[in-house]
Amino acid sequence: MKLLKETIKAIGSPDAEITGAAKRRMDSLTKPLGSLGRLEDLAVRLCGITGRLDPVFKNKVIFTLAADHGVTEEGISPYPKEVTAQMVYNFLNGGAAINVLAAHSGARVVVADFGVACDLRPAAGLAAKKIKYGTGNMAKGRAMSRDEAVKSLSYGIELFEDEYKRGVDLAGTGEMGIGNTTASSAITAVLTGLAVEKVTGRGAGLDEKGLQRKIQVIEKAISVNAPDPSDPLDVLAKVGGLEIGGLAGIILAASRRRVPVFIDGFISGAAALLAFRIEPKSAAYMIAAHKSVENGHSAILKQIGIEPLLDLGMRLGEGTGAALAMGLAEASVKVLNGMATFSSAGVSEKRDV
Amino acid sequence: MKLLKETIKAIGSPDAEITGAAKRRMDSLTKPLGSLGRLEDLAVRLCGITGRLDPVFKNKVIFTLAADHGVTEEGISPYPKEVTAQMVYNFLNGGAAINVLAAHSGARVVVADFGVACDLRPAAGLAAKKIKYGTGNMAKGRAMSRDEAVKSLSYGIELFEDEYKRGVDLAGTGEMGIGNTTASSAITAVLTGLAVEKVTGRGAGLDEKGLQRKIQVIEKAISVNAPDPSDPLDVLAKVGGLEIGGLAGIILAASRRRVPVFIDGFISGAAALLAFRIEPKSAAYMIAAHKSVENGHSAILKQIGIEPLLDLGMRLGEGTGAALAMGLAEASVKVLNGMATFSSAGVSEKRDV
Repeated sequence: MKLLKETIKAIGSPDAEITGAAKRRMDSLTKPLGSLGRLEDLAVRLCGITGRLDPVFKNKVIFTLAADHGVTEEGISPYPKEVTAQMVYNFLNGGAAINVLAAHSGARVVVADFGVACDLRPAAGLAAKKIKYGTGNMAKGRAMSRDEAVKSLSYGIELFEDEYKRGVDLAGTGEMGIGNTTASSAITAVLTGLAVEKVTGRGAGLDEKGLQRKIQVIEKAISVNAPDPSDPLDVLAKVGGLEIGGLAGIILAASRRRVPVFIDGFISGAAALLAFRIEPKSAAYMIAAHKSVENGHSAILKQIGIEPLLDLGMRLGEGTGAALAMGLAEASVKVLNGMATFSSAGVSEKRDV
Repeated sequence: MKLLKETIKAIGSPDAEITGAAKRRMDSLTKPLGSLGRLEDLAVRLCGITGRLDPVFKNKVIFTLAADHGVTEEGISPYPKEVTAQMVYNFLNGGAAINVLAAHSGARVVVADFGVACDLRPAAGLAAKKIKYGTGNMAKGRAMSRDEAVKSLSYGIELFEDEYKRGVDLAGTGEMGIGNTTASSAITAVLTGLAVEKVTGRGAGLDEKGLQRKIQVIEKAISVNAPDPSDPLDVLAKVGGLEIGGLAGIILAASRRRVPVFIDGFISGAAALLAFRIEPKSAAYMIAAHKSVENGHSAILKQIGIEPLLDLGMRLGEGTGAALAMGLAEASVKVLNGMATFSSAGVSEKRDV
């Protein structure tokens, strides 16, 4: 609890002076005012977050956290729960989508076990942060104790801090956990107050019957556990996930360290919403990488007040959207620092017609 | 006319067999079916276009064509017409947005003068394709003769073919020409049959009064010239632009050579619509890079039947959207060729629940 409290307390605000200077510089460049749209806003935000007019994104890290979900007992995923561990090995072997897309963006992938339901073979690239062998089945009782929820957040913070020592200029969130869209929909329903059916999607590929069952299971989980919407820790403990708590910790730690953090899709979004409810100042450090197909995602981003950069119909998770969007961060900052100004290039400025 | 006819005749169709094989490979990879959304479709299309399961995008080229527009006499742009030439020098000096974004994507920029209204100093990176010193004022008469329209297309083809000899694996379109959103709106209105006000926007930053004047000028140009909607060459000649014809030529030549061509924003879109009307088969080779803020752009893309990849509120032109989207092409093909399959990674597949 100490690390969590200390982290939250240390979260400040982006640098207003640098933000203003970045905006002025952007407006002096040889292009019609605002004509690069959201790329301009992104560059200005990245300057404010990092407190630099020329942020350097040398160390890009995607945090891909894995854990299992007891609620899979209820048949809410078309994939067997064993896939969580199998995919962790796939990450470690470099064969998953996140490996390819992170490499494309020049990011390294940090894979962590926050609660996979079996013992994983120790491996060089695997951070051991197991809290327990998967959550409890939330349709029958709480997913985890309040202590375990705090632990998941703290382990996330620790994981970030360890990497931060090695250098993290740009962070991205990602996850793997069969059943974790179910937990994310539950979190979203409780924290936004929206009906479960409005924030529940087909996950890895449920058919209509499966979707209806998933909605019923989530409604049951909320009714059985009665999570308190005003207490994000209670929500995480009762209907959350170990990797989701971990990601919320990562986001809080990145915010503390003024590292821009790319929020991936729906599950990462649920973690971001928890982080936002724990400390609203963290929103200023979050970049919404993309708009997931999962229908609860937009509600989450709206609550936090961030707009997704990409909208490519993706719903894979792992951090794939975050990795893809990182390229835009670099491009935006190159524009700010690489372009000529109207005066330096001798280009005439806008006039009234 | 010979080169144009020969080019059009040689445009084929994407390789259906490779397309099918790419789709099958995509579906065998360790991710829920379709979960990378449009990135998957993009990879499959790129394979079909190039006829390769592992397309290599080593040589990326953005073609940025510049020309002036006589219609600027009517006060339809907030920038003086001199900016066209000034920006060409800015391109050659590496200070423009397209220089920065092309470098970010590893693309080279080919700058060409298709009709700037003054004599430009010869420079290493500048292709001299001047047809005349800007178009005529289309509010008073035709923008160019039919011969000049054919020449603009042929020069575009020649420019592409010259670069193709040096290697072009991925092409992007871009332009610079004060007044060219006015010509593009006129082309779009004529070819789509939509009202001028539905396809006319603020360009480089007109206010409401300026926008209304621009609409009136375009309506006048269409009424004075009466372009034949069923004859794209007539439309180009009467209300088009020299750089717009050039870009249509680039697109036709890229289609012939099976080189994926990223269509930038609104002006490039008008060129793409001309190319599509000249030879509908060319649509299969076009990738819509992004959705421009200009309100005629969506109508164009709908007509051609292509969907934009990015939607970042951009309206700069030059090829900036094309350059930015090229990164997605590379990422998509890396996914196809870099990921493990369910069987190679030992990951369990989807089951019925």
